[in-house]
Amino acid sequence: MDKEKLEHLRHSAAHLLAAAVMELWPDTKRTIGPAIDNGFYYDFEFSQSITEADLEKIEAKMRQILPTWKKFEKTEVSVEQAKKEYADNPYKLDLIDEFSGQGQNLTFYKSGNYSDLCRGGHSEHPDKDLAHFKLLSMAGAYWRGDEKNTMLTRIYGTAFPSQAELDEHLKMLEEAKLRDHRKLGKELKIFMTSDLVGPGLPLWLPNGAIIIEELEKLAVETERKAGYVRVRTPHIAKEELYKTSGHLPYYADSMFPPMHLKEDGHSTTYYLKAMNCPHHHQIYAFEPHSYRDLPLRLAEYGTVYRYEKSGELFGLMRVRTMQMNDAHLYMTPEQFEEEFKAVNDLYLKYFKMFGITKYVMRFSTHDPEELGQKYVEEPELWKKTEDMVRQVLKKSGINYVEVVNEAAFYGPKIDVQVWSSIGREFTIATNQVDFAQPRRFGLTYTDKDSQEKIPIVIHRAPLGTHERFIGFLIEHFAGNFPLWLSPVQIKILTVSEKHADFAKKLATEFTDHNIRIEVDDSNETLGNKIRKNAKEKIPYTLVLGDKEMASDQLAVRVRGQEKLWTVAKAEFIKNISKSISERKLEL
Amino acid sequence: MDKEKLEHLRHSAAHLLAAAVMELWPDTKRTIGPAIDNGFYYDFEFSQSITEADLEKIEAKMRQILPTWKKFEKTEVSVEQAKKEYADNPYKLDLIDEFSGQGQNLTFYKSGNYSDLCRGGHSEHPDKDLAHFKLLSMAGAYWRGDEKNTMLTRIYGTAFPSQAELDEHLKMLEEAKLRDHRKLGKELKIFMTSDLVGPGLPLWLPNGAIIIEELEKLAVETERKAGYVRVRTPHIAKEELYKTSGHLPYYADSMFPPMHLKEDGHSTTYYLKAMNCPHHHQIYAFEPHSYRDLPLRLAEYGTVYRYEKSGELFGLMRVRTMQMNDAHLYMTPEQFEEEFKAVNDLYLKYFKMFGITKYVMRFSTHDPEELGQKYVEEPELWKKTEDMVRQVLKKSGINYVEVVNEAAFYGPKIDVQVWSSIGREFTIATNQVDFAQPRRFGLTYTDKDSQEKIPIVIHRAPLGTHERFIGFLIEHFAGNFPLWLSPVQIKILTVSEKHADFAKKLATEFTDHNIRIEVDDSNETLGNKIRKNAKEKIPYTLVLGDKEMASDQLAVRVRGQEKLWTVAKAEFIKNISKSISERKLEL
Repeated sequence: MDKEKLEHLRHSAAHLLAAAVMELWPDTKRTIGPAIDNGFYYDFEFSQSITEADLEKIEAKMRQILPTWKKFEKTEVSVEQAKKEYADNPYKLDLIDEFSGQGQNLTFYKSGNYSDLCRGGHSEHPDKDLAHFKLLSMAGAYWRGDEKNTMLTRIYGTAFPSQAELDEHLKMLEEAKLRDHRKLGKELKIFMTSDLVGPGLPLWLPNGAIIIEELEKLAVETERKAGYVRVRTPHIAKEELYKTSGHLPYYADSMFPPMHLKEDGHSTTYYLKAMNCPHHHQIYAFEPHSYRDLPLRLAEYGTVYRYEKSGELFGLMRVRTMQMNDAHLYMTPEQFEEEFKAVNDLYLKYFKMFGITKYVMRFSTHDPEELGQKYVEEPELWKKTEDMVRQVLKKSGINYVEVVNEAAFYGPKIDVQVWSSIGREFTIATNQVDFAQPRRFGLTYTDKDSQEKIPIVIHRAPLGTHERFIGFLIEHFAGNFPLWLSPVQIKILTVSEKHADFAKKLATEFTDHNIRIEVDDSNETLGNKIRKNAKEKIPYTLVLGDKEMASDQLAVRVRGQEKLWTVAKAEFIKNISKSISERKLEL
Repeated sequence: MDKEKLEHLRHSAAHLLAAAVMELWPDTKRTIGPAIDNGFYYDFEFSQSITEADLEKIEAKMRQILPTWKKFEKTEVSVEQAKKEYADNPYKLDLIDEFSGQGQNLTFYKSGNYSDLCRGGHSEHPDKDLAHFKLLSMAGAYWRGDEKNTMLTRIYGTAFPSQAELDEHLKMLEEAKLRDHRKLGKELKIFMTSDLVGPGLPLWLPNGAIIIEELEKLAVETERKAGYVRVRTPHIAKEELYKTSGHLPYYADSMFPPMHLKEDGHSTTYYLKAMNCPHHHQIYAFEPHSYRDLPLRLAEYGTVYRYEKSGELFGLMRVRTMQMNDAHLYMTPEQFEEEFKAVNDLYLKYFKMFGITKYVMRFSTHDPEELGQKYVEEPELWKKTEDMVRQVLKKSGINYVEVVNEAAFYGPKIDVQVWSSIGREFTIATNQVDFAQPRRFGLTYTDKDSQEKIPIVIHRAPLGTHERFIGFLIEHFAGNFPLWLSPVQIKILTVSEKHADFAKKLATEFTDHNIRIEVDDSNETLGNKIRKNAKEKIPYTLVLGDKEMASDQLAVRVRGQEKLWTVAKAEFIKNISKSISERKLEL
């Protein structure tokens, strides 16, 4: 089923939900019910308290009504008629004012006995099409998303064209709950939050810090080979920097509030950085450049701070601090195609490495009619770079969609969407071309013809932010990280007290090979130790008793398996060292 | 000569300076002239413009006066007499009010024809003792260091008991000028500053980022072996965190100003962190601890932000952003001695590694009379830990001085002073014991006896901050970094164009061995390339011509030497890989 039809299906399901609610609680005030990614919702103001326990009752009512829904009938109504219909519903009155104010015709859509103010977009045969739905959850939501307005009750649901697809989606949600990165993040001691530090500001526990260090090592190695150099820049700057970049005043709402430093009789305003580019542009400007020095590729795992409303914060996915796998590439137009291709290849390399098999690049281009208004006026550069980007995407056979008129002000961009192993979608990375900032900062290079020209900049962050990427990885691997990413790679379980010293000696041997190992020599029974250990999702467990002390053979249990393997120690160390250095996906 | 006598000598020289100035420009207003580390100064309000060119003239006058200075004569005077003497000098009147207000007797000291309001402390035979002095520089200085007051002219000088000592000191200053980390930092492309980013906020260029990464790698490796675990914490937190730690409100003046975030109808105040400890304490509190889990050693190269007045900022030495080699060790009192010794050994290890041969640990202890006022009231803990610290310092044979009544509020501390290779002193690291913060944060562990107890914390930062430590290293090595720290370790200079491809191939071979190498295949003459290269202070230079292309022998020039050595490539790679991995000090 195509995307539009699926949206019609889900929006129709939202009507059905509202119809059921209005039958059950007739004095409820309805508001809006759109289709969203993976489902739909409807926001209500209930006159009594409704809980998730009521969802079943609503669903039953929906199924009871459904057979009477043969089709949707459209009626055009006047503003007066519409207002009369919703005389006691301030939300609908608000919508009526908005729609009619914009010169739109007001339309009602009716199915069965239920009619609603609606702009259309429905299933053709609701009684048949809507068979496969499910209500999922409830949440609070401000009217029009504004904290100053009434808090409404939002009911979420989903609907699919077939029962098989619905079941698969529900299974995925079930699995996602088990893999919830907030739950696993705590159990596996990866990160924590603190009320004293603040919301959206995760603190990384030792296990999380190891994952971060391994990801950074990967990025540093990969980028060094690709000719990047690394820089380090402060987390703050004077407001003048962001005025020059153009982020202030427009982006101010997404930044942390200013710090006003009073000294020498005047006040200087500082901001936490919300992006690294202006800092990197300062480094570019440190010395003059020739076309010969370019491309210059400045990389930094820069930590930026952005203000997200507290209601939008969610685990590691929506946060206020972001450690970003950032880089800015400065190049001549002639170098663009090769550089863009290299960046693209980097994405593909990472996808493979992390076992990401489903992904799409969303390529946003400009609209020539909007040049000089919505887009920086460089018609030739736009055309040329978009053509080149398109070429690269096509040649690489990568899965991409092109979206016209959604580019950034300063150039075309690519958002990278990936799906985790259980089929959930994440936007983790971006890749943007920039014609505007280099000009604003007066960045130049001397070209072959001795002319001063303005370089093109690519902003790219293939691993996104540590926060979101690790959140994704937790779900993707269900916490069963590949060996190289596992905070603890091996755990030794001693059978009894007398094996403790030998266990420590053995552990040192592994440590000398840069393998992360822990010893559990507590007084618990081996059975208890094994159960506890399974929860920690450690790739290899060594059980150490008399037999192992007497030989060079190890008793190895592989994560997720019951069997104990016997392996020669030297061979085991060799194999896992290889797996770590090659960053293998499978154990 | 002991420290007190040397101070008397230098303070006497300040009198002599003032005497010369008053003879040359009699309507000058004198203020104060103390001895300081390595010299003395005197602050004046001149009625005409004086420049550094006048220093010679002043020196000549000082030498002319000196033979008449047989001794210092002391006279007690009344407030009225003193005020009459300085009727037209508001600074001295200010001092007279201050001294008399504190109930001090006012004294004048006279030598030769020159008399000055002074509390004493002079040479016995100035005409002989003061022979070896030198005026050094001039600077602006606010009266009493307050920006609201008049800007005075400060004249700096130095004096020593012998000409040899004076010459040595002047030579050191000369050498320090050549090694100035601000000058070399720019020439070697290590760091830059930007007006748009702000003062005291260095941006690290690619060469600087490499040095930082090497230092961090060293710290991570060393600390991992010593049982530390790493964490990552945000750069901001709510003010509640710093109120709990006790840093707010007392430390507010040294912090960046607050950010007031308005949301959900109220305002939350955030601060940039000026220290990492409160964040680490939150991580300690993530889960319950038993004495068995301790010591817990949480390490982070945490970047903190502190407000320093813009007049105090100086290159990398006094900055507003500090990347700190931080760690907090949580332990039982029984574990303290061993932990403290291990930290101490870490310092010694680093000193050796960086060729720091002169250092002193300044051990600040409490005064029992001030317990409960100046110091947290834990008489036994104070005594016990100070005894243990003293024991460790004595046993290790380390050079230390003990300073009573200069401890921190929360425990004894050690400041580590080191001298660079040219004999200049730097305070680079601290090591503090803390009884107070763990209590404020309610941190506990369950002891053997099942009682909840409060852990002791050690704050330690053996490599200090990247900023100050790299500033120190630049001077210490005059930019001639050891191989492992050198941003570029080898440079290949091609003799002519036809060697360029081979040079690139050769470079790749080194890169594969993780050796940082660059190729200069520009069209300049070999002589020019060699001269340019010498300024970059790269440890090894390979000259690549026909002969080298035809064999497996390399023509190697060692930094600072003229001679070209012939070395087999394989042997060369092996040797320098060894030097890098062992972090050798010498080439």
